[in-house]
Amino acid sequence: MFILHVNINVKPECLDEFMKEITWFAEECRKEPGCLRFDVLQELEDPTKFMILEAFPTDEGVVAHQQSEHYKRWGQVAPPLIVEPRIRVRYRPIVGVEG
Amino acid sequence: MFILHVNINVKPECLDEFMKEITWFAEECRKEPGCLRFDVLQELEDPTKFMILEAFPTDEGVVAHQQSEHYKRWGQVAPPLIVEPRIRVRYRPIVGVEG
Repeated sequence: MFILHVNINVKPECLDEFMKEITWFAEECRKEPGCLRFDVLQELEDPTKFMILEAFPTDEGVVAHQQSEHYKRWGQVAPPLIVEPRIRVRYRPIVGVEG
Repeated sequence: MFILHVNINVKPECLDEFMKEITWFAEECRKEPGCLRFDVLQELEDPTKFMILEAFPTDEGVVAHQQSEHYKRWGQVAPPLIVEPRIRVRYRPIVGVEG
């Protein structure tokens, strides 16, 4: 099980564009047969802060995800909208996020 | 929709006890009719670091959760096992974590 948690800070002036792009990207990811979870959440207190929680049960699912057209597009459109670095942390499931 | 993300650092010498207690607590939470999600994840790189992602669609569900016996027990057993403070952040869903 591949589980990745990503914290993203968005440039305030890019918030509308980011919302459009992340929504499209996340919905494409959720259509992937190898994708168990792809959640996008926005902080209540600071709407420029987001988290993504993604889960792929198999290595094949991760590879298919990273080779997808929407992944490549996201890699191009996201960086100008974001205050880098994004914080990426890998997890293993204890309770929940199971196949 | 009430969504809470919690980061927890566990005292290394308390890891076994914490795992036992958090597993029991999370499984009790997931039995609540008002609980949409209660995930417990452990960092791959640092097994003393955990995150919880919990979601309750209604205020009534949150109240029932906070008044439950397992919530009260958790409030008693958790603090000695944890390096405070726990970081709690409220979120709203953009994609996923829906009812």
